[in-house]
Amino acid sequence: MSDKQKDNASMNWDHVASNGLLSRRHLLGLGLASTASLAANPLLAADTAAISTPSWSKVPGRDLSGYGNPSAFTQEVQRLTGSPNPLLPGGGASRSPLHLLQGSITPNGLHFERHHAGIPNVDPAQHRLLIHGLVRQALSFSYEDLLAYPQESRIYFLECSGNSGANTAAQPSDGTAASLHGLLSGAQWTGVRLSTLLEEAGVKEEASWIAATGVDGASMGRSVPLNKALDDVFIALYQNGEPIRPEQGYPMRLFVPGWEGNVSIKWLGQIKLTSGPANFRDETSRYTDFLADGKALQFTYPMGVKSVITSPSGQMTLRRHGVHEVTGLAWSGSGAISRVEISADGGSTWAEALLEGENQALALSRFRLPWLWEGGPAVLQSRATDSAGNVQPTRAVVLAQYDAANRYHFNGIQSWSVSEQGVVANAFA
Amino acid sequence: MSDKQKDNASMNWDHVASNGLLSRRHLLGLGLASTASLAANPLLAADTAAISTPSWSKVPGRDLSGYGNPSAFTQEVQRLTGSPNPLLPGGGASRSPLHLLQGSITPNGLHFERHHAGIPNVDPAQHRLLIHGLVRQALSFSYEDLLAYPQESRIYFLECSGNSGANTAAQPSDGTAASLHGLLSGAQWTGVRLSTLLEEAGVKEEASWIAATGVDGASMGRSVPLNKALDDVFIALYQNGEPIRPEQGYPMRLFVPGWEGNVSIKWLGQIKLTSGPANFRDETSRYTDFLADGKALQFTYPMGVKSVITSPSGQMTLRRHGVHEVTGLAWSGSGAISRVEISADGGSTWAEALLEGENQALALSRFRLPWLWEGGPAVLQSRATDSAGNVQPTRAVVLAQYDAANRYHFNGIQSWSVSEQGVVANAFA
Repeated sequence: MSDKQKDNASMNWDHVASNGLLSRRHLLGLGLASTASLAANPLLAADTAAISTPSWSKVPGRDLSGYGNPSAFTQEVQRLTGSPNPLLPGGGASRSPLHLLQGSITPNGLHFERHHAGIPNVDPAQHRLLIHGLVRQALSFSYEDLLAYPQESRIYFLECSGNSGANTAAQPSDGTAASLHGLLSGAQWTGVRLSTLLEEAGVKEEASWIAATGVDGASMGRSVPLNKALDDVFIALYQNGEPIRPEQGYPMRLFVPGWEGNVSIKWLGQIKLTSGPANFRDETSRYTDFLADGKALQFTYPMGVKSVITSPSGQMTLRRHGVHEVTGLAWSGSGAISRVEISADGGSTWAEALLEGENQALALSRFRLPWLWEGGPAVLQSRATDSAGNVQPTRAVVLAQYDAANRYHFNGIQSWSVSEQGVVANAFA
Repeated sequence: MSDKQKDNASMNWDHVASNGLLSRRHLLGLGLASTASLAANPLLAADTAAISTPSWSKVPGRDLSGYGNPSAFTQEVQRLTGSPNPLLPGGGASRSPLHLLQGSITPNGLHFERHHAGIPNVDPAQHRLLIHGLVRQALSFSYEDLLAYPQESRIYFLECSGNSGANTAAQPSDGTAASLHGLLSGAQWTGVRLSTLLEEAGVKEEASWIAATGVDGASMGRSVPLNKALDDVFIALYQNGEPIRPEQGYPMRLFVPGWEGNVSIKWLGQIKLTSGPANFRDETSRYTDFLADGKALQFTYPMGVKSVITSPSGQMTLRRHGVHEVTGLAWSGSGAISRVEISADGGSTWAEALLEGENQALALSRFRLPWLWEGGPAVLQSRATDSAGNVQPTRAVVLAQYDAANRYHFNGIQSWSVSEQGVVANAFA
C-alpha cells in the first residue's frame, strides 16, 4: 500500500455505491481537498521566498477590443470537424468538444454544426420570412419586422438525431465524449413565438401541419404538427444574447424545443401551413428510424432521455490514485432532468449524482459526483431520469428496437472503461 | 386620428398603468401581433407569385469551422471601447452593447472589460496560484492542479462599481444603454470553491481577511473578508462553458458573486491570508465612495439593486405608433430580483413587468412589458426590488448620499424620455 493509498484508506469516506463512488458531501471539500490534488500537500507546498515575478507582470498588456477571442493557449478547445466529402459539398457536421467544456451553456463559437449544403452568407436586409399556405393572408416579414415583435428567452439543448450513432456499431470505437456525443449543445435562445406570427396570418381550420424550409443550397425542409408549432416553437434571432451565428442560421432559424435538431430549420425562409406532413426529401432519405421488424418510423421528433459522463471520458488518462470528480451532462426532449445516477461497476450499483442549477425543462443539466479511484478496473456509467418518468435505457435495450442499420435516436447508457493504468475508453458493457 | 390610431383605439387593450402600459397578457400575442409589426397587415401581405430565389440558395455555402465567429452583417454588435489614455497604458474599459443584446447571458466576446494595465498574455503552464500568509502551509497550485478539484457552475452578473457613474453629472449626457450602463455582463462561471483550497492550506485562527493580487502589470489587488471568501467565492476557470477569456483573467480569476467587479481579481496570482484588509492602492486611490458629509466609505462591496431598460433606450428612435416591447435587465448584489415595475409617465404610475426565467440570485434577470405608444411624450423608467426587500432608489435619493465627486455605486432609476418624434434620450426625471 502506498502512502497515498494509506491516506485514502484512513479518510472518513462516505461510500454510496461500490467501486469508489462517494457521497456528494465530499464535493463540498469535506476532507476531499488533500486527496483531490495532483499531489499530497508536501508537493503543493510553496517556497514563498523563491517566488519570482513573471515577465507579463512587468509591462502593460494589450488593450481593449470590440469583440474578444479565446486565449492562444486554448487552441485545442475547438469543434471537431470531419474531412469534407466532395460528393456532398457543404454537407457534414462539427462536434462540440464536450470533454473540454464545463457548465451547461455552450459558447457560440463551439456550438455543434450540421449542414446539408454549407453555410449561406445571408444578407438580413435581403432576407424575408414568408408565411403562406392555409392562412387567410400570406405574409412576408423582414428581419426588422420580426425585431418589432415581443420576444422570449429560454435555455434549451439542441441535439442532432444522429448523435451517438457510432455506439450502434458492433464494436466500440475508440472515441471521445466529443467524437461520440458532441452533436449536442446548450444555449440561451431568444426569439419571437411562431404562434404570434401565425395569429397575424390567420390559420385556416383545415391546417394541421407546418412545412418549414431554409434558404440554404439544400433547401432543407421539415414538417411540424401544428399543435407543436403553436405551443413552444419560435423564430430564434439571438443565441446567448447576441444575434445567432451564421452556422446556426443567421439571420433566423426555427427553434423546436426538445426535438431532433434538424427540425429547427436554419436560415428559415418559408413556413407553409398544410393539411399534412410535406414529406420532404430529408423525411425519407434521412431522419427516419429503421426498426427491427423491417418497418421505419417517420416523425420521431422528441429526443430521448440521455446522459453522458464528460470526465473521465474516452481517451483521457487518470494520472493519480485518489478522488476524481465524475461529471457530465443530462437532457431529455420530454421534460426536465429529475435524477442522474452513476455507476462505477458497470451498472451493478448506482449512486445519485448532484444536479447543478435549475434543471430547466429541455435544457442541459450538469451532474457531479466524487469517485475514489485506487487503481482497480472500473466501468463508469450514467443513467438519467426525466420529469416524465422516462429512464435512460441500456445500449442493449435501444439496439433491440431497431434494425442494425439505424443510426438515429440512440440514447443508450454510455460506458467508459477505466484500466488499471488509468486509461479511459469507450466500452460496450 | 390615423387609421393606425383607430386600430389601436378599437383594440381590447388591458391597460395597467398610465400613458400606454399594457398587461403582460398582450406579450402572448393576444391581439398584439397586427399592431406590433412595422406596418399593418396590408403592408406585410406577401405576393407569393413574386417570390424569387436568393443567390445564396443556388450554391453550396461555406464549410464547417473549429471555432465560429459572428456574421459579417452584425459588425455593429461590438463592445464600446474608449480612446486609450497614454498616461495610463492599458488602463480603461469597454462596455457591453446592452441595447443590441437579448436574454440574460452575455456572449464571451462581448463581456465588458476593465483593465488597470492591459491584458497580460499569461502562459498557464508557467502560472501559479500562491496561497500564503496566515495559513499552516503555504501552497502553490498550477492550472492543472486546480482542474483536478471539484468544480461548480453558477450564472452570475458582474458589474463595475463605476457603472452608470455618468448619471451623477449635473446634466444628462446623450448616452446609450451601453455607454451609460454597459460595465455590466452576465455569464455562467465555473470554478473551484476557494474554501476547498483554504481548507487544504489550513487557515490560522487569527486570519480574518484575504488579500488577492493579479499578475497583470498593475498587480491589481483587493481585500475580501474571510467570511465572504469562505462562503461563495471561487476561482473561475470557465466562462459560458469554455476556458475564461484573456480579458477576463485567463487562466484564472477570483470571482466574488454580487460584489463590485474589481474585487474579482483577474489573472489571479496570490491569495494571502491576513488579519485585516491590505489597503491596496486601489482601495484608497479608487473604489472608495465620497459621502456628502466629506467622509469616504471603504469596502462597500455588494452592488445595489438596479435595473435599466435596454429597449427603447437612449439614441433609439421609435419609427411607428403602436405597441412596443419595453425590455431590460435587473440585478442585485443582495439576492434575486423579485419584482420590476415600469413607468411610462416618469414615475407617477407603475405596472409590474414579466420577469423571465429562473431569477437566480446574483444573476441578470430579463424583464418585459408591452407599451402602447400613440405619439405623446413619455418618460420610461424601471424600478427593481430584490429578494432582500431592497427597492431601487431614484437618482435624487442616491445623489443625496454622496459627495458630488463620487462616481461609484450609482444605482438610481434610469429615465428615458420619448419625444413626440419618437426620439429616446437619457433624462433626469
